[in-house]
Amino acid sequence: MIERVCIVGAGVIGSLFAGHLAQVCDVSVLTRRKEHADALNREGLRVSGKSERHARVRASVDPDALPPPDVAIVATKATGLRGALGALSDSFPDATMTTVLNGLGAEEIVREHGEWPIVSAVTFMSGTRHSDTHVEYILDTETWLGPYEDTPFERVQEIANTIVASGLRAEALPDLRPAQWSKLVFNAAVNPVAALTGLPHDPHFAAEDEPTDLGHLVHGLVDEGKAVAAAAGIDLHDDPWEMNVLATQRGSAHYPSMLEDLDAHRQTEIELITGSLVREAERRGVAVPLHKTLYWLVKAKEQSW
Amino acid sequence: MIERVCIVGAGVIGSLFAGHLAQVCDVSVLTRRKEHADALNREGLRVSGKSERHARVRASVDPDALPPPDVAIVATKATGLRGALGALSDSFPDATMTTVLNGLGAEEIVREHGEWPIVSAVTFMSGTRHSDTHVEYILDTETWLGPYEDTPFERVQEIANTIVASGLRAEALPDLRPAQWSKLVFNAAVNPVAALTGLPHDPHFAAEDEPTDLGHLVHGLVDEGKAVAAAAGIDLHDDPWEMNVLATQRGSAHYPSMLEDLDAHRQTEIELITGSLVREAERRGVAVPLHKTLYWLVKAKEQSW
Repeated sequence: MIERVCIVGAGVIGSLFAGHLAQVCDVSVLTRRKEHADALNREGLRVSGKSERHARVRASVDPDALPPPDVAIVATKATGLRGALGALSDSFPDATMTTVLNGLGAEEIVREHGEWPIVSAVTFMSGTRHSDTHVEYILDTETWLGPYEDTPFERVQEIANTIVASGLRAEALPDLRPAQWSKLVFNAAVNPVAALTGLPHDPHFAAEDEPTDLGHLVHGLVDEGKAVAAAAGIDLHDDPWEMNVLATQRGSAHYPSMLEDLDAHRQTEIELITGSLVREAERRGVAVPLHKTLYWLVKAKEQSW
Repeated sequence: MIERVCIVGAGVIGSLFAGHLAQVCDVSVLTRRKEHADALNREGLRVSGKSERHARVRASVDPDALPPPDVAIVATKATGLRGALGALSDSFPDATMTTVLNGLGAEEIVREHGEWPIVSAVTFMSGTRHSDTHVEYILDTETWLGPYEDTPFERVQEIANTIVASGLRAEALPDLRPAQWSKLVFNAAVNPVAALTGLPHDPHFAAEDEPTDLGHLVHGLVDEGKAVAAAAGIDLHDDPWEMNVLATQRGSAHYPSMLEDLDAHRQTEIELITGSLVREAERRGVAVPLHKTLYWLVKAKEQSW
């Protein structure tokens, strides 16, 4: 029985979880900024768009000021993960930690900070953050969850059921890696290219008619990523090239957060996305020259400020 | 005997040639903008820095308004070459066309427009353009010239001697390709990386201590370029990696024009630099994945405006 959930990191995804789960559980929110926590305690959290909610939540920058949760949903950006976990080390003794981050490797970083049971998750929902206390729910696609290490599958199902009861879409999978890798290969092919070119994820990314068309690069990146997945024994859940083509046909072009991060001169999520793919490729002896090129370029751009 | 020289394209390099050669020849200047020609006719052309000159020149946007030259020095940017040659097609019947552009392939484009004898040149001098009528001479390094097709070597020597007599450094080489390729491989490894990262050509480009360091990418690009040169039967004149290391140690970091072009949302010289290297690699069956990645990214960035 899941009574208390803590959302760690209230960006778009964290806010969508908090706003919905507060219908069925007691929800607390661990924020990075005190003003953010104060605003949530004062005004609550509003969700608009695909669903309408107004949730009361208890928020703080200090985990010890929050009730110990049964489940913590870790939804920071990759760049904020270690900072958030550092504050948590001796807190939340009975929580199942559920990681919902881009890329690979968040679970290992959680494990470095404590012995909690861990559930892996990957989400395909999206939204827009209008303020500290208002998030718009835009794409009502699924969140998939799977066990990490020896977490029982029943625990994963219990968390998925709670998310579904709150009005979001979710599914428990015995093995999350095929879905996690599909999203990794997709993100690694799209996000750094958007960040370096300044293009949103638009039809350029699927164009292959002319030799100069950007789709050739994206396709080459996808092929390298699939080769790494195959070498790692992963049978991908979705084909990342088809995910790319479908997403560019959706009408309004998405601005990947890596592009927004580079534009704002913030550190990007390159390490957990491209970095984890390149390191896995090196362990498996797979050549990924296109990904390495993007990795060095984004790293250099981060250093150029 | 070289009496009349026309400079086609008065950017930094063209202006340095015009300002110096006017000491020893009758110099005319073919410009793209009428205001530029008017300013040159009114004020002359000033050179400061490594040498001090004030030259009287005759300038026009119309080649038929200029005296037919013995030698035309074509110093446009790669992106302005076809436009300049289009205006020239039936002009300058007795001129030896001397191309001083970045990259490869300018000679073929000149040949498409007329039957002139052609001399290939590559320059290592640099400067800063302060106005339409004032250029500062900064690096007083050499210009190398060589015959193209069946142009006699004596003609190349005559042009080199005239340039030397004007106060610039120049040398005639029986085969220019080793030097041209050294500069091509160097430019292809440095310019697109600077353009995409926003970094000037600074010590980041030679750093290889950490796995994330940008020097790994630049070194990989140089190695691909050397493999293409070797497959094309070229014995490079200088090692492009050493050129890169030396240039980054020079103190003030150079801003490659491709970075300035991308920042200003102008078309870049990517086609004659990376594009010509990639096409040569395809003809020779050499894999150049790093160069192809940069090519697609710069092309996409040009399309993002």
